[in-house]
Amino acid sequence: MHKFEEKTIKTESIFQGKVIRLQVDDVLLPDGKEAKRELIKHPGAVCVVALTAEKKIILVEQYRKALERPLVEVPAGKLEPGEEPELSARRELEEETGYRPGKMTHVQSFYTSPGFADELVHVFLAEELVKVEDGLAADEDEFVELMEVTIEEAEQLLQENRIYDAKTMWALQYLRLNGLV
Amino acid sequence: MHKFEEKTIKTESIFQGKVIRLQVDDVLLPDGKEAKRELIKHPGAVCVVALTAEKKIILVEQYRKALERPLVEVPAGKLEPGEEPELSARRELEEETGYRPGKMTHVQSFYTSPGFADELVHVFLAEELVKVEDGLAADEDEFVELMEVTIEEAEQLLQENRIYDAKTMWALQYLRLNGLV
Repeated sequence: MHKFEEKTIKTESIFQGKVIRLQVDDVLLPDGKEAKRELIKHPGAVCVVALTAEKKIILVEQYRKALERPLVEVPAGKLEPGEEPELSARRELEEETGYRPGKMTHVQSFYTSPGFADELVHVFLAEELVKVEDGLAADEDEFVELMEVTIEEAEQLLQENRIYDAKTMWALQYLRLNGLV
Repeated sequence: MHKFEEKTIKTESIFQGKVIRLQVDDVLLPDGKEAKRELIKHPGAVCVVALTAEKKIILVEQYRKALERPLVEVPAGKLEPGEEPELSARRELEEETGYRPGKMTHVQSFYTSPGFADELVHVFLAEELVKVEDGLAADEDEFVELMEVTIEEAEQLLQENRIYDAKTMWALQYLRLNGLV
C-alpha cells in the first residue's frame, strides 16, 4: 500500500453513459480525515501518429462539442469493450482517413487527466500507409476532414491554436525529437 | 459557423460537483441526424515545469484516486474561480514544493481530453527558484512528496511507468527539445 493511498469508504454511482461513468467516492486521507473525489471512468482511447512516404503527418479536423469548436488532431478514438489497442488504432485510422498501415508501432501510453479521470491513451506510430478504396465506414455520428501536412505546417497550426490538445502536441514533439520528420 | 458544428437541441444537467460538472447535450449533426454528447465541464488547470540552478526538475508524487495509484508529475492544480493562470501556477508551486520562482514564463496551453472534457491546462516554466521557509500551506486534502531529479532520472521514471501522464511527458520532451536540461 502506498503511504498516501486514499481508502474508499463509500462509492456513489452518479451517471452511467454510453461513453463515461461518473462516481463520487468518500475517501479516508492519510491523516485520517475524509474527503470526496469526483471520478470519471472512461474506456480508454488510442491515437495514431501516421506518416506518409513523403513524411507528411496525417491529421483530422473535427468539431469538439466539449469545447464548442473544431480542433485539428492526430486521428483518435475510444476503445471498444475488449478491443486490443493496436486493432483499435488500425480501425480508427482507416475509418477516419482511409489509410491502412503496413507497419504499426506502439510508442507510448499516457493518462490524460489523472486529477479526475482514468482515460488512458495508447499512441501508435503508423508507417507504410496504403490508401484503401473500400475502407471502413466512419462512425455514423462522426464527421472529420482529412489533412496531410508537413511538420512545419503542423507547427503553424499549433501557433494558430487550431492544434490545441495534449496528445497532438506530444506527437509533434515526438516526431521532432526522434528525427522522424 | 464551422461546417461540422453540432447545434445544441437540449442540455440536461446531470451533476454539479465541487470540481466538475456533467451535462448531456442532444445535438444536431451536420447530416441532420441527432446524437447525444456526454460532456464534462472543468475549471481549467495549471502545471509548472520548474528547474533548479543545477537543471534538476521539480516533480511531485501523489496518490491519484481516479487511477487508484500514485503518479509522479510536474506540480499542478486546478484554477480557482477568476484566478489568473500565472498566479495559480505560482501558488501551486509554492504550496506543493515550497519553491518561489524568480522567473515565470507561459510556454503552452492544451486541452487534455477534448473528446469529453473542456479541461485546459496552462503550462509555465519556472526558473530562479528560491526555497521559502514560511511557504503557503498545501490544500488540506492534498498529500504530495517532493522530488528533484535530472532529466535522465525523469526519463527512467517514465520507463518505469511512475511518470505516466500526458502533461508530464509533454514537459520532458519540451525540456529536451529546447536544450533546457
